[in-house]
Amino acid sequence: MVVMTPEATPAQIEAIVERLEAAGVHAKVMPGELTTAIGAIGDPEGVREMGLEGLPGVDQVIPISRPYKLASSELSHHAPTVVEVGGRRVGGGETFCLIAGPCTVESPEQTRAVARAVADAGASMLRGGAFKPRTSPFSFQGLGYEALDILADVRAETGLPIVSEITAAELADRFAETVDVIQVGARNMQNYGLLEVVGKLGKPVLLKRGLSSTLEELLQAADYILKEGNGDVILCERGIRTFDTAMRFTLDLGAVPWLKLHTHLPVIVDPSHASGDRRLVGPLSRAAAAVGADGIIVEVAEDPEVALCDGPQQLYAHDFPQFARDVEAHASLVGMALA
Amino acid sequence: MVVMTPEATPAQIEAIVERLEAAGVHAKVMPGELTTAIGAIGDPEGVREMGLEGLPGVDQVIPISRPYKLASSELSHHAPTVVEVGGRRVGGGETFCLIAGPCTVESPEQTRAVARAVADAGASMLRGGAFKPRTSPFSFQGLGYEALDILADVRAETGLPIVSEITAAELADRFAETVDVIQVGARNMQNYGLLEVVGKLGKPVLLKRGLSSTLEELLQAADYILKEGNGDVILCERGIRTFDTAMRFTLDLGAVPWLKLHTHLPVIVDPSHASGDRRLVGPLSRAAAAVGADGIIVEVAEDPEVALCDGPQQLYAHDFPQFARDVEAHASLVGMALA
Amino acid sequence: MVVMTPEATPAQIEAIVERLEAAGVHAKVMPGELTTAIGAIGDPEGVREMGLEGLPGVDQVIPISRPYKLASSELSHHAPTVVEVGGRRVGGGETFCLIAGPCTVESPEQTRAVARAVADAGASMLRGGAFKPRTSPFSFQGLGYEALDILADVRAETGLPIVSEITAAELADRFAETVDVIQVGARNMQNYGLLEVVGKLGKPVLLKRGLSSTLEELLQAADYILKEGNGDVILCERGIRTFDTAMRFTLDLGAVPWLKLHTHLPVIVDPSHASGDRRLVGPLSRAAAAVGADGIIVEVAEDPEVALCDGPQQLYAHDFPQFARDVEAHASLVGMALA
Amino acid sequence: MVVMTPEATPAQIEAIVERLEAAGVHAKVMPGELTTAIGAIGDPEGVREMGLEGLPGVDQVIPISRPYKLASSELSHHAPTVVEVGGRRVGGGETFCLIAGPCTVESPEQTRAVARAVADAGASMLRGGAFKPRTSPFSFQGLGYEALDILADVRAETGLPIVSEITAAELADRFAETVDVIQVGARNMQNYGLLEVVGKLGKPVLLKRGLSSTLEELLQAADYILKEGNGDVILCERGIRTFDTAMRFTLDLGAVPWLKLHTHLPVIVDPSHASGDRRLVGPLSRAAAAVGADGIIVEVAEDPEVALCDGPQQLYAHDFPQFARDVEAHASLVGMALA
Repeated sequence: MVVMTPEATPAQIEAIVERLEAAGVHAKVMPGELTTAIGAIGDPEGVREMGLEGLPGVDQVIPISRPYKLASSELSHHAPTVVEVGGRRVGGGETFCLIAGPCTVESPEQTRAVARAVADAGASMLRGGAFKPRTSPFSFQGLGYEALDILADVRAETGLPIVSEITAAELADRFAETVDVIQVGARNMQNYGLLEVVGKLGKPVLLKRGLSSTLEELLQAADYILKEGNGDVILCERGIRTFDTAMRFTLDLGAVPWLKLHTHLPVIVDPSHASGDRRLVGPLSRAAAAVGADGIIVEVAEDPEVALCDGPQQLYAHDFPQFARDVEAHASLVGMALA
Repeated sequence: MVVMTPEATPAQIEAIVERLEAAGVHAKVMPGELTTAIGAIGDPEGVREMGLEGLPGVDQVIPISRPYKLASSELSHHAPTVVEVGGRRVGGGETFCLIAGPCTVESPEQTRAVARAVADAGASMLRGGAFKPRTSPFSFQGLGYEALDILADVRAETGLPIVSEITAAELADRFAETVDVIQVGARNMQNYGLLEVVGKLGKPVLLKRGLSSTLEELLQAADYILKEGNGDVILCERGIRTFDTAMRFTLDLGAVPWLKLHTHLPVIVDPSHASGDRRLVGPLSRAAAAVGADGIIVEVAEDPEVALCDGPQQLYAHDFPQFARDVEAHASLVGMALA
Repeated sequence: MVVMTPEATPAQIEAIVERLEAAGVHAKVMPGELTTAIGAIGDPEGVREMGLEGLPGVDQVIPISRPYKLASSELSHHAPTVVEVGGRRVGGGETFCLIAGPCTVESPEQTRAVARAVADAGASMLRGGAFKPRTSPFSFQGLGYEALDILADVRAETGLPIVSEITAAELADRFAETVDVIQVGARNMQNYGLLEVVGKLGKPVLLKRGLSSTLEELLQAADYILKEGNGDVILCERGIRTFDTAMRFTLDLGAVPWLKLHTHLPVIVDPSHASGDRRLVGPLSRAAAAVGADGIIVEVAEDPEVALCDGPQQLYAHDFPQFARDVEAHASLVGMALA
Repeated sequence: MVVMTPEATPAQIEAIVERLEAAGVHAKVMPGELTTAIGAIGDPEGVREMGLEGLPGVDQVIPISRPYKLASSELSHHAPTVVEVGGRRVGGGETFCLIAGPCTVESPEQTRAVARAVADAGASMLRGGAFKPRTSPFSFQGLGYEALDILADVRAETGLPIVSEITAAELADRFAETVDVIQVGARNMQNYGLLEVVGKLGKPVLLKRGLSSTLEELLQAADYILKEGNGDVILCERGIRTFDTAMRFTLDLGAVPWLKLHTHLPVIVDPSHASGDRRLVGPLSRAAAAVGADGIIVEVAEDPEVALCDGPQQLYAHDFPQFARDVEAHASLVGMALA
């Protein structure tokens, strides 16, 4: 939709129409009270690229169609995608996926202890950081491949599928071999090269929303993975950056029902990174279940105060069973059982 | 806390100490690895006003104490305030306050019909706009005093206490006479003259968070009312302005547990204005109950499509009973019954 | 422009058309590749109020026309408004208005000293706070009417017109009597009652952009004043609230040329409140001149360290002459002389 | 600085002190009027990692020292870094670097024509996109290596050093061979793997601020490159994401003088991507010169309406000479000549 300024001349309007039709797009002129609008029908991507905003007499070009394609709910005729991971179902509205584990894998003992605690309390999968993207180059960056091996060992013991974050394309093969769900972190949501590599691995992908990404951009990022033929994408709301600094990020729980309207992909919530404060993780996790999320991903530690990273946001392992029961109760009210 | 630059000279440090002590504040010098910090003990408000950031050798002045006083949970020794309105209790953790009604009072018939529907479904109070703050001066601004009279009549019929928004100090007497809870809207949260007038009326006040107000500023605004001797202030999270335009505002549900930690005042949530879309109001209301809010305030209409304002966000009256039951179920999981 | 979902049925499309035409709006159906759009021609305000987003088959309602009217540049056929204040011209592209003075009027001596310093350096007007809107009710709130009297005395001595902020409608008469330009502060930009009162006073108004107001909302707020018959409105960009906390606010200098394209009203810039740091006020003031603003408003003090408010952002009076010459040089490059 | 809650017990305070001292950090207890603060002296990074916020009695942990190291102005004793590129100097306050060229390299003819136009008008370097990071996977992504070859040919003809954006680590060798300044785009500012790879190439790097990155995070990202031994980093402010959608991004010109205070690295400005509108590029470029930037980077095209990307923000090549003269005039007022 091209909107002309009130002073646009008939010749200027005609020039736009010609340009559109030369590009193979059908143009429909709609004279209004104050301004004339020109509907451009066909190839929306092409129209956006034409740069018509710069032409004489043009006030604005307003996109009418949604910018994402493969992730849109229309594409699946509103049937939700269900991602299967080691027998757990994510998406579909009947199961709630409880992913829990340490922020960072620090040792086999620490990882095993947390894994057992969360498995006993009904967790669906185990999370654990191997490669940590850190804002400062002088912070602890994770154990790397050693951490992946530890996670694999703990999976063998507990049966929990493992989720870990990939931070660079060259790690792809080892991740594809070892982990069950490959996480793309918020800071890499628009690292398009990485998205394409991950899209080719044939493994479920957990795609976190960027710190300041719109929901439409999140779905466009999902399109990067989906177009490589990998349909197993799980979206994750993890808090956005706003003006308020009371909490680390602002958890956008409205994103969950909005995404349910606009995409067929499952949507989970990460309340640990959003709030940065364990006292808020319980309430926000219950709210995530009540709002209709397909799951949550939370951090748990036996002794968060000695954790090498993000201690204050990690739940105490000894509180986890009660936490899980509370979340489960809210999930069951909206018809979901723990995956 | 005054932090000096790494190059600050001893004379510059001494100058700051002298200035603080001349103002009656005790100064404690803390030499660090790279920089020296000076703790200023006593009168934090005064230190903030001193403008030390501008002095030679000063890098930053970091406030250590919280900027709000009367609203702080320490002041009440963590005992929550309970606001009583016509027998309904707001706050305290045992009751959930369900406030519902039309966006705008348009006629006695319309208001009565909605009021009966929400009363039958268990609502605690009736909301209705009399004076509407509108972004454009050319939009419908409400029926004014006539609307207050209609609300009072409907209260007599249904027994529901009434909530309505005040938009200017000169309306205060009529509001104090007629309504049960006086709402201060988001756009007036920092209209300090209005806050002081409202604080003197001796009526419960519903104070909405500004579109871009931090939680600390919300509590400072509450301080304006509290210092007039009115302790009956109910806070309301109603969505903040962020970069994302998928929804009208971003509902900050994390604000609820954060406020529960930092203030003794009750906190409710307005999912209608936040989302601007009725399809999101149900999920967000359930989430508000799950996250521990003391209530919600929602808009309801018999025929939203002909409403004079904010149609798309209003719940259908015929859906309200099921909506109320769903919210109530989540509230009861956290130990609260409808007020 | 009403955009239907891809699944919208012909009956749903027809229902929208009927509703629009029943409201006296001409509807034009535009079938597209994926979705159908319906152009609504006539009464845009009315269409926005209809709440069509909530109807079956509707995806989104996209406003095509701009929401402000009286402030729009089309209304004045792109002729800029020039506001005359005591012989100084604000707007029109030939004069640059340099408004300077203390944050707060604290005493006749302090005010006089600053006024002389800025008058000698070529300032166009004197600013000074009488009623200060303060985030905390426990902060210094200004001398009130006494300050207005001090400003009037200093005007008599220096010949500088005076600018001061009004914070409540009941102060209007005294402001109209005493000050030359009535400032409406950022926190009151959407205090519509105050805007209407100020619009009736027949005095030039300096309208500051709200902390999180869009530029369209700023122009709609100007409409509130303009519709009362007062055409002398000066807009002021003073920094917006963003995620970054390095500076107090983010000065949006791009707003100046954007506003020049879309409104006929003059636009000035306040770099003092935006940055909160005098070291940034010089560069940002030069940039304001270079970007095409019609003026700036800055805070100046003889001894900012003892000022009762906002010390760190105030320029030293003894630096002001050089500051003024630097700003003037950039203004003259874009064809403007000091007003 | 660890701030305790008002109710913190002496035992809780003691526990924090012990934990700090066990970690080798000196702790200084500062009892205040309401709360006690504990200064932690030494290893700030370590203290941040300790997760003390989660411990009983702790209200907040406030960092006192700046989180970036190698980029800080103290490190260079406030001597600015000057990056030399093919005889042009970026940084140091005497030269203003004017980088211009097409958004995307589309053909040898198009690139050569623009390069000649900007070279004739005094440009310092040529920019041109080879690999374009696009939000949608269905948009044109650039000519890739072919574009690098075209740029190299045009450099041979015009003598202009070339700047192009790298989007993935595997492209590093070809970029190091061919381009003079390797640009890291906003979406990759926190792609730490890429930063480290680029840091090892021994070529000047142009690091753009992320869409929602704080200035401190920008300097921490620079630290990633600097710690690899590459000191030639040029920072670039290119607009941040805010609530306002009038322009594509909000150009944060205050960032320039703030960065000048806090880092020794040169700072340039990209007004084309920030505004997305060529009518704003001229004013914002002049403002960038006036505010003290070390240069600008702008997009230029002969016929922007047929450009494959970002047409509306590209300057017309025939307007460029006047544009360059205007910017140069403002730069010369602050003592800088075109590089």
